[in-house]
Amino acid sequence: MIGMKDVSITEVGPRDGFQNIKTFIETEDKLEIIRRMIDSGVKHLEVTSFVHPKWVPQMRDAETVVSSIRTYAAAKNLELIALVPNKFGALKAKAAGVDAITYVISVSEAHNKANVNRTIDESFEAFKGIVGEMGKVKIRLALATTFGCPFNEVVPVERIVSIAERGLRAGADKVILADTIGVADPMKVERILKAVTAQIDPSKLIVHFHDTRGMALANTLVALNAGIRNFEAASGGLGGCPFAPGAAGNVAMEDLLNMLHAMGYQTSISPEGIAHVVEAIAQKVDAPIISHMSKLGSCDMAAEGTCNG
Amino acid sequence: MIGMKDVSITEVGPRDGFQNIKTFIETEDKLEIIRRMIDSGVKHLEVTSFVHPKWVPQMRDAETVVSSIRTYAAAKNLELIALVPNKFGALKAKAAGVDAITYVISVSEAHNKANVNRTIDESFEAFKGIVGEMGKVKIRLALATTFGCPFNEVVPVERIVSIAERGLRAGADKVILADTIGVADPMKVERILKAVTAQIDPSKLIVHFHDTRGMALANTLVALNAGIRNFEAASGGLGGCPFAPGAAGNVAMEDLLNMLHAMGYQTSISPEGIAHVVEAIAQKVDAPIISHMSKLGSCDMAAEGTCNG
Repeated sequence: MIGMKDVSITEVGPRDGFQNIKTFIETEDKLEIIRRMIDSGVKHLEVTSFVHPKWVPQMRDAETVVSSIRTYAAAKNLELIALVPNKFGALKAKAAGVDAITYVISVSEAHNKANVNRTIDESFEAFKGIVGEMGKVKIRLALATTFGCPFNEVVPVERIVSIAERGLRAGADKVILADTIGVADPMKVERILKAVTAQIDPSKLIVHFHDTRGMALANTLVALNAGIRNFEAASGGLGGCPFAPGAAGNVAMEDLLNMLHAMGYQTSISPEGIAHVVEAIAQKVDAPIISHMSKLGSCDMAAEGTCNG
Repeated sequence: MIGMKDVSITEVGPRDGFQNIKTFIETEDKLEIIRRMIDSGVKHLEVTSFVHPKWVPQMRDAETVVSSIRTYAAAKNLELIALVPNKFGALKAKAAGVDAITYVISVSEAHNKANVNRTIDESFEAFKGIVGEMGKVKIRLALATTFGCPFNEVVPVERIVSIAERGLRAGADKVILADTIGVADPMKVERILKAVTAQIDPSKLIVHFHDTRGMALANTLVALNAGIRNFEAASGGLGGCPFAPGAAGNVAMEDLLNMLHAMGYQTSISPEGIAHVVEAIAQKVDAPIISHMSKLGSCDMAAEGTCNG
């Protein structure tokens, strides 16, 4: 793995974290958190979602968020990303000035149907229609439920590979393999990534793990060993299931960074900067911070010297 | 790894978890929790510590705990283990009827000094004195700070290997490699286990990880790949630093089991039984439950069908 020590992490908290939070976060507060993320060295940042405000009222300020931050983002050489559910949202995102869009297709027919009321083929038709309109805007295609589906649909690994290849042929710059519900285990990740990387260059792939069952870092390790160097994470571990208070959400940026840096991987992101982000989230966002590193502040390591095991 | 699918886990919560809890847990409550652990299929259980009650008042009922549970334990073919700090405690543990004792030596001179005010050599002299008295009682030698020391002493991997070999020569049946302060990362674990398993049969080794920085399951994965099949864990993730409320302690039994079973490993332990243990801990013990699996109860997976990533 020598020469493979650079890891890129996309911060997705302002989208995947905020979207489930009922209490509206004031636009200025969102922007303050986003600015701190940029200041910490984040270079890829999913800031919002251009969904209909009726479905996700939290994202009703998507255009304001993007237009307010784009100049600062450009000055810091940051890739500004927004999730879009359809061509209408994609055109709005482009007009607002994003550098990249994320579009979601589930590898599970049942989940895709529940999520967007379309078959996978219908989603691909819609995706191609969007790609044709995007010009210089980069395209990320997220494959939801890659590592497990809430409806227990068994998705053959060959289907995952073929959907990923189809996405790249259709114009995606990157494919995101997402553990939407946090059920990936290291063996499943190894099996799926082995099959996918046999056909697709790992530099085209991003993995997105949730820490729902505490396996996000173990799965990250497997992905690193499979040659993946692009990850997604959310500062403060935002993005948990709204029906399970205290359950973990996206892998926490601070936990992921700590492991990567301990192992000698390099990122552009400063742990101190992320601690500053987490402080702002704790102050301004009505959601629990769920990460390991954020809980260590008051632990005097030397005081543990007397423990026994 | 075919034929290597059986994993043994020692439950250490009643010792490594309870020892830091200020509020005394009534002996009957301890016994109820311990009985539920046995009923869940645990076969190796560290139930207490024969330390001086002045130092750890929580463990003042060590003899009662062991003598009350030994018949039930024997009927269930369970290995009943107690930690002992010295020969006095070891003889009391033997008289009370334990099947095995755990003795701790730190691989860091600074930590050993802080912990027991002895050099490593002096600890080995004391250890040999204990071994000679134990008869059929099995001996576990725990090597504290194997993966990192709170005093930042740099311990060469050769010293870890030589201390482990010395322990086995001196009469230990098993050597426990302990991440006392939860700083192990997968690269460090790989390096140390590679060196140790080059000299010592993995069946003689047990690893003990704390989830302080969220890396316990990633480290477990590395240990599995190194051929280790003996682990320690605490139901409910007990054993956190008393100075950092909310910080994780020992890797939670329920999280470890979930990953192992998801990966196709077999244990003797039932996750439903452990959920029953965790319920009892939540009711009877004044300490937070820190695990991922215990937080999932109210999460309706299908309800997550509408999420986007």
